[in-house]
Amino acid sequence: EHHSLQKRPLRSGRQVEGPALHTLLTDLAKVHNSRERAGKLFEWLIHPVPLQSFFRDIWEKKPALIRRHNPEYYKGLFSTAEFDRILRDDDVQFGVNLDVTSYRNGKRETHNPPGRALPFTVWDFYKNGCSLRLLNPQAFSITVWNVLSILQEHFGSMAGANVYLTPAGTQGFAPHYDDIEAFIIQLEGRKHWRVYNPRSEDEVLPVASSPNFSQSEIGEPSLEVVLEAGDLLYFPRGFIHQGDCLPDAHSLHITISSYQKNSWGDLLQKLVPAALEMAMEEDIEFRQGLPLDYLTYMGVQNSDKEDSRKAQFTEHLLSLMKKLAKYAPVDAAVDQKAKEFLHDCLPPVLTPEEQASSVYSAPTRIEDGKARDVTAHIKPETKIRLLRDGIARLCSEGDAVFLCHTVDNSRVYHKEELKSFEVLPEHTDAMEFLIHSYPDFVSVGSLPCDSFKEKASLAELLFERGLIHTCEPLLFS
Amino acid sequence: EHHSLQKRPLRSGRQVEGPALHTLLTDLAKVHNSRERAGKLFEWLIHPVPLQSFFRDIWEKKPALIRRHNPEYYKGLFSTAEFDRILRDDDVQFGVNLDVTSYRNGKRETHNPPGRALPFTVWDFYKNGCSLRLLNPQAFSITVWNVLSILQEHFGSMAGANVYLTPAGTQGFAPHYDDIEAFIIQLEGRKHWRVYNPRSEDEVLPVASSPNFSQSEIGEPSLEVVLEAGDLLYFPRGFIHQGDCLPDAHSLHITISSYQKNSWGDLLQKLVPAALEMAMEEDIEFRQGLPLDYLTYMGVQNSDKEDSRKAQFTEHLLSLMKKLAKYAPVDAAVDQKAKEFLHDCLPPVLTPEEQASSVYSAPTRIEDGKARDVTAHIKPETKIRLLRDGIARLCSEGDAVFLCHTVDNSRVYHKEELKSFEVLPEHTDAMEFLIHSYPDFVSVGSLPCDSFKEKASLAELLFERGLIHTCEPLLFS
Amino acid sequence: EHHSLQKRPLRSGRQVEGPALHTLLTDLAKVHNSRERAGKLFEWLIHPVPLQSFFRDIWEKKPALIRRHNPEYYKGLFSTAEFDRILRDDDVQFGVNLDVTSYRNGKRETHNPPGRALPFTVWDFYKNGCSLRLLNPQAFSITVWNVLSILQEHFGSMAGANVYLTPAGTQGFAPHYDDIEAFIIQLEGRKHWRVYNPRSEDEVLPVASSPNFSQSEIGEPSLEVVLEAGDLLYFPRGFIHQGDCLPDAHSLHITISSYQKNSWGDLLQKLVPAALEMAMEEDIEFRQGLPLDYLTYMGVQNSDKEDSRKAQFTEHLLSLMKKLAKYAPVDAAVDQKAKEFLHDCLPPVLTPEEQASSVYSAPTRIEDGKARDVTAHIKPETKIRLLRDGIARLCSEGDAVFLCHTVDNSRVYHKEELKSFEVLPEHTDAMEFLIHSYPDFVSVGSLPCDSFKEKASLAELLFERGLIHTCEPLLFS
Amino acid sequence: EHHSLQKRPLRSGRQVEGPALHTLLTDLAKVHNSRERAGKLFEWLIHPVPLQSFFRDIWEKKPALIRRHNPEYYKGLFSTAEFDRILRDDDVQFGVNLDVTSYRNGKRETHNPPGRALPFTVWDFYKNGCSLRLLNPQAFSITVWNVLSILQEHFGSMAGANVYLTPAGTQGFAPHYDDIEAFIIQLEGRKHWRVYNPRSEDEVLPVASSPNFSQSEIGEPSLEVVLEAGDLLYFPRGFIHQGDCLPDAHSLHITISSYQKNSWGDLLQKLVPAALEMAMEEDIEFRQGLPLDYLTYMGVQNSDKEDSRKAQFTEHLLSLMKKLAKYAPVDAAVDQKAKEFLHDCLPPVLTPEEQASSVYSAPTRIEDGKARDVTAHIKPETKIRLLRDGIARLCSEGDAVFLCHTVDNSRVYHKEELKSFEVLPEHTDAMEFLIHSYPDFVSVGSLPCDSFKEKASLAELLFERGLIHTCEPLLFS
Repeated sequence: EHHSLQKRPLRSGRQVEGPALHTLLTDLAKVHNSRERAGKLFEWLIHPVPLQSFFRDIWEKKPALIRRHNPEYYKGLFSTAEFDRILRDDDVQFGVNLDVTSYRNGKRETHNPPGRALPFTVWDFYKNGCSLRLLNPQAFSITVWNVLSILQEHFGSMAGANVYLTPAGTQGFAPHYDDIEAFIIQLEGRKHWRVYNPRSEDEVLPVASSPNFSQSEIGEPSLEVVLEAGDLLYFPRGFIHQGDCLPDAHSLHITISSYQKNSWGDLLQKLVPAALEMAMEEDIEFRQGLPLDYLTYMGVQNSDKEDSRKAQFTEHLLSLMKKLAKYAPVDAAVDQKAKEFLHDCLPPVLTPEEQASSVYSAPTRIEDGKARDVTAHIKPETKIRLLRDGIARLCSEGDAVFLCHTVDNSRVYHKEELKSFEVLPEHTDAMEFLIHSYPDFVSVGSLPCDSFKEKASLAELLFERGLIHTCEPLLFS
Repeated sequence: EHHSLQKRPLRSGRQVEGPALHTLLTDLAKVHNSRERAGKLFEWLIHPVPLQSFFRDIWEKKPALIRRHNPEYYKGLFSTAEFDRILRDDDVQFGVNLDVTSYRNGKRETHNPPGRALPFTVWDFYKNGCSLRLLNPQAFSITVWNVLSILQEHFGSMAGANVYLTPAGTQGFAPHYDDIEAFIIQLEGRKHWRVYNPRSEDEVLPVASSPNFSQSEIGEPSLEVVLEAGDLLYFPRGFIHQGDCLPDAHSLHITISSYQKNSWGDLLQKLVPAALEMAMEEDIEFRQGLPLDYLTYMGVQNSDKEDSRKAQFTEHLLSLMKKLAKYAPVDAAVDQKAKEFLHDCLPPVLTPEEQASSVYSAPTRIEDGKARDVTAHIKPETKIRLLRDGIARLCSEGDAVFLCHTVDNSRVYHKEELKSFEVLPEHTDAMEFLIHSYPDFVSVGSLPCDSFKEKASLAELLFERGLIHTCEPLLFS
Repeated sequence: EHHSLQKRPLRSGRQVEGPALHTLLTDLAKVHNSRERAGKLFEWLIHPVPLQSFFRDIWEKKPALIRRHNPEYYKGLFSTAEFDRILRDDDVQFGVNLDVTSYRNGKRETHNPPGRALPFTVWDFYKNGCSLRLLNPQAFSITVWNVLSILQEHFGSMAGANVYLTPAGTQGFAPHYDDIEAFIIQLEGRKHWRVYNPRSEDEVLPVASSPNFSQSEIGEPSLEVVLEAGDLLYFPRGFIHQGDCLPDAHSLHITISSYQKNSWGDLLQKLVPAALEMAMEEDIEFRQGLPLDYLTYMGVQNSDKEDSRKAQFTEHLLSLMKKLAKYAPVDAAVDQKAKEFLHDCLPPVLTPEEQASSVYSAPTRIEDGKARDVTAHIKPETKIRLLRDGIARLCSEGDAVFLCHTVDNSRVYHKEELKSFEVLPEHTDAMEFLIHSYPDFVSVGSLPCDSFKEKASLAELLFERGLIHTCEPLLFS
Repeated sequence: EHHSLQKRPLRSGRQVEGPALHTLLTDLAKVHNSRERAGKLFEWLIHPVPLQSFFRDIWEKKPALIRRHNPEYYKGLFSTAEFDRILRDDDVQFGVNLDVTSYRNGKRETHNPPGRALPFTVWDFYKNGCSLRLLNPQAFSITVWNVLSILQEHFGSMAGANVYLTPAGTQGFAPHYDDIEAFIIQLEGRKHWRVYNPRSEDEVLPVASSPNFSQSEIGEPSLEVVLEAGDLLYFPRGFIHQGDCLPDAHSLHITISSYQKNSWGDLLQKLVPAALEMAMEEDIEFRQGLPLDYLTYMGVQNSDKEDSRKAQFTEHLLSLMKKLAKYAPVDAAVDQKAKEFLHDCLPPVLTPEEQASSVYSAPTRIEDGKARDVTAHIKPETKIRLLRDGIARLCSEGDAVFLCHTVDNSRVYHKEELKSFEVLPEHTDAMEFLIHSYPDFVSVGSLPCDSFKEKASLAELLFERGLIHTCEPLLFS
């Protein structure tokens, strides 16, 4: 029953404390395992709700309000000052990176002029009551990038974000639902939110976002709150929502999103055609011809016809369909999904320690026209590991094995193709060993290759590509 | 065991008699039910093998030789004289309608010049030892068109044909297998055939044709015969075959083919994605998010990993996959397949009686600048039926119902798009009634519509489009 | 002064006689030179106006009415009976080959249903007052094909045709002008025509057809006539026209058209870019850089600026432009135009004599599985010539020489690509000699090649491709 | 005579002095007129050769060596340290921004791996004797961007650059010529250059770059020098060149290029088709039909034919061609060229003063959720001018007038479309006045508009888009 949330949300009346974001990020940098790091950051996001109960009781099930009475809780994540700085320093383009919108008298409009969004123009729109949506703050704010790049490892699914700035006394968007899990983080001011239950079973965890609704289509809200700075509002995909500013305060919030097209059905869309192709290759039953006369009793025009052959036909067809599971290449389908995720990923924001122990800090340089320190001294006792757990993945394509990775991705969504390279047969076992050893460092000498030369060449390649770091900084000459 | 076929094929030593083809076609024109007509023509094709035993013992299972000792059996179907006439009268283009080929010393070559194939050039190639393959004789020979257009109704799948003319002492093609059921009808001369069993389970009833094989790849033939005029050789897709002419005789045969991409698996390719789409719409389980961490234990890189979550994940995924059958829109998928078949179909060759009682013989004409006899007197007692059983089919698309039909198809494969028109809601029941009444004529008055006006308007529309004929010729004014 | 035409057209009051069309075509078949044949057919078309005065005084200048008082004059060209036969026998598709139109109360409409146009439907539309336009009668009527294929040689430009059938008391089209020279040949009934002078200089001999006009946009007609069967109405492109039927008679006419995009400017569109490319290759002046600062005084924003450099810049630019003529590859540009024409051409309709002496009557055949008479005995004294003057043309492409030809064209516009083949260097002179010798036959021995083998191989190739015929029928063995 | 250059180049033996680049750029920022500024920067580039004599005697004519005996002359433009910094800090991608090449034993190779170019990998290639070419240093170095963005205004044509770093004792590229004017600026080390005259008239100022040549194809150099840091080598497009490093020194140089496709012929490619279109619209002579029989005497197959009509035809055709000049829309064609240039342009690097007096320094901001200082107080006496002379241009398109501009261009070539907006009719004169007033500031009150409201709205629009700056900083509230 969502209604109870409204009256008695997870609120204590007492201020919920938390570390300042920059302190937290500095501390997280010391967490050895990137997946653990991701979990801790997500815990901070939903604190004081425990992780386990969040995913058991709330996630994909119902909205949740976390009231903190602590306007400083999310401080440092994003601010209007940062927004203004971005407009001044970066090439923000209307319609590409920034939308100017309004929702007045039931009418939703977009007001983007062409070209670069300069503060003079942007704040003029804002003064005139328009809302601003910054579409990919992670491309402009290193903190947002860092937070999302950590969280994506927790979700196993792309973590995205939009920033919304709304003038006092206005609303920028019509009621609608989205196709993502939404975490609304109030950063400044306050905003009045109304959240509505999915209107029917069909709109629970929907596959696609809705169009804009009129007020008459959505009924009464199941949750109505005024979100204050430091509060969090979560709701699953399918929950209709609208937010407007009270006359006395503007609102700045960032919405973090995930789990777009990340359902069992989405995985089945990879798996099922592959299973059928497999079955047709391997199982003669699938290649046998249809009955000569099936068109005379099957099909919509015969749906009211009585014919004993119908049941027999359907039964055989559905038995083949069930038999498909036998041929389902589950791991290959998961890999297809994984590759899409790797392509969606933000590249990692390296910690100073990661930086220092990886190729990004190699002292290699040019001096007086001569290259210096370009030889990394990799020895049997040199200890290495992947820079992050979720940074790379072995996938097979035909007979070849490829390592797909995120380190050359762009902060701009899909600006680069998915990057990968072939792993030589003599390196495959070692690569798998390295992946599974994470978060532990392993010595190059312990890699399962035939010779040290092979071990070192793999280590060098991975180091050169920026995929691993060493336990102790390498020596160069 | 195919080998026995070779030693003791279905031969009696006695001549197998049959009606002359033109007599047969004239008789078939009197068969009231087009599907029955199709069956009888197929029976003639495989006579004296009974239909039932053919489909029970041979079809899709093994090659069969029907030896008739009667060079006249297939007379009238096609001939070198007809081939020559076509070259003279029709616009046969090299590479489009005719291939000039050779297979000498293990090397298969194509010798098509550009442009129109005139007899002077074609017979010169032939004299020099090249084989000729006429690719779609149904576009040039009305008899072949007629035979195939009848047979397609028996198969419920496109019936195609190629004609092969080979000079004495030569071979035109390398050994290979096809992806169709093949009926090789020897028309003139004789040909030495070698047929080989599929080389492995994987090549039984294969999905696609093979490349050309070298002799060393195919082993020993399971069947070796010299086909004489009047004989039939059948083999299923996947059986490798090669034919060459003896030094003393040329060969002319026509290969009739069917069942290309007409397997249970081909139907599943329509059904399975539709089932998944349905399931995602209707069943929340399919829309629920994947586990947060499934990428850490699933996928090829984890295939050797021991992890209890793997089994659980796989089990749930496969249980969803099996549950798909529950949402499988079988009839809609059959309709998709049916529409492809209708698009593949040859248009019907009307019998004189069909012609006389349909729009094609309406006396409507223009005379002295005035249109005459353009009103067909459709009365409640006027009796109508579809021109052929397989000529049209009701298919639904969203909320609308369409009638797809073959009457405006071309003799040239896929030259026209699939033709259809929307059936008005007030006509749907009557249309279904009409389809299911075939082969009986029904009176217009008995059509299940609300008024005679509606009944007559449907009858008029179907008459105008050439889809129905009347029991008695209509009166016009 | 067009107005005089209306009052006293080229009419005598006396019947103008002419040969029946089939007699004329039989006689023309005996005219040795195809170009002369084309001229004679055109003379018949405009008889009794002399060819010379037509092209001097009327062509591209003003409308002309040729009144003949002889309804039989064009008999045999086309008729409503032929129209009806075509609908019955041929695959005429609405919207592709046939348009159903109306123009009522100033509103022009098209009423095409989908699919094949059967007489029952077509004449129903006609009865209800719709006009019918058959779009390419040459594809269905061998006489129209024959007439147009002869005339195209006279025009040196594609000759097209449409047939229009209009019920009594109706009009099918709104007033408009076309981009072609129009010859309106009244075949049956009568039609009331109003022709209007181009509305301005800009619309004289326009490049493109007009939209439909309202009556208020077009002023008063300069010519108003009732065209009777046997009469001809000609008007140049740009002359607005509309025709409607009197209440007492339907109308059938065929419009023969030519000279679409066949102006000096159209040729310059081939020539001018080629000239500039040539000039840039050959003349350094064209490759020299523009002045550093030309953008500061040239361009629209500087058009009111006084600057002495402007005149100097413009003068140099225009002097280069005039210099282009020096590099103009006139013959190559003409060849580009010629190739487009050859692609547009109808294939020739051969006369019985042409047929008998060309490859189309070669006795080559297949008999008892053996090719007979496939060797044509070409001897030094064998006399050959092109089948028609306009049937083929030598064009160079880079260093190679190609023979482009029309014999494999389709009766359907541009259904086939332009057909051509490379002429071997040793055959180029002979090919040119053969082309220029037309209409004379020349002996194969007289062809300028190095050996008789080369001569015979060229003759054989051209014979095989259907491009030449022989003076006496060839012997074959 | 280029040979003399080799022996006695423009060298004095005495050191040529010049201001440090950063000092020069600071001083240039004070030059009121951006075009003057551009000229002065180019003067520094070729100092001590006077501008006038350079463009009179050398530009597009012959190579020139400017020997300065002053390794510091170009200091600050680019360096290996800067190269290394870019690799560390920026996302340099192999194959996109950086090429790794070698030329050994007459064989030119490219060695780009996929992905990001990190210093560790790059300097390893370099150590192994590979050359590095940084493809668009202006995207990574603000100084290069600044220099090129100023120079482009001098050239009236895009100014591009590549940086080349070559290890001692190696060569990175095969001999070839380019299609641009090249200024080779030696930054570090030294390089041995051989320059060869164009091999024929056809290769003087060529339209396109050459393939790689072998040594045997290029003959003897006309100029052979060792370029030292601080020296400049210029050569026009078409001059073959190759450079290699002596065994004792590496080489770093930047090549600045311009005048690609900026010839009179390139302008004619815009002008000539437009002139023909114009002529066909305005001049009936161009729309008149070609002679009926021109294909019988014109064209390549008739080139040897004697026919008096040929001369007449050609004469008329060429007279029309010459008449084209009469219809040539010179200013419109220049505008087409100008728009391409504006699209090619780098955006301006603003000086602190320009920044301070333009929208980029507007104090407009957001504070406590409220927009501040978003109203710019534009008064009649506010003085404005374009930020740069070459920053914007009025072009007409149909009846509308557009202002095309470079301020929203990207440092990455053609990353953005050409940006423009429509100028309202009431603003057109004022816009033109403002453009022509440059470099003078004009008061908003003096703009030729009907009302102050119109004047202010234009000024505000241009200010907002970043196209103008004010004489005194504006007041905001």
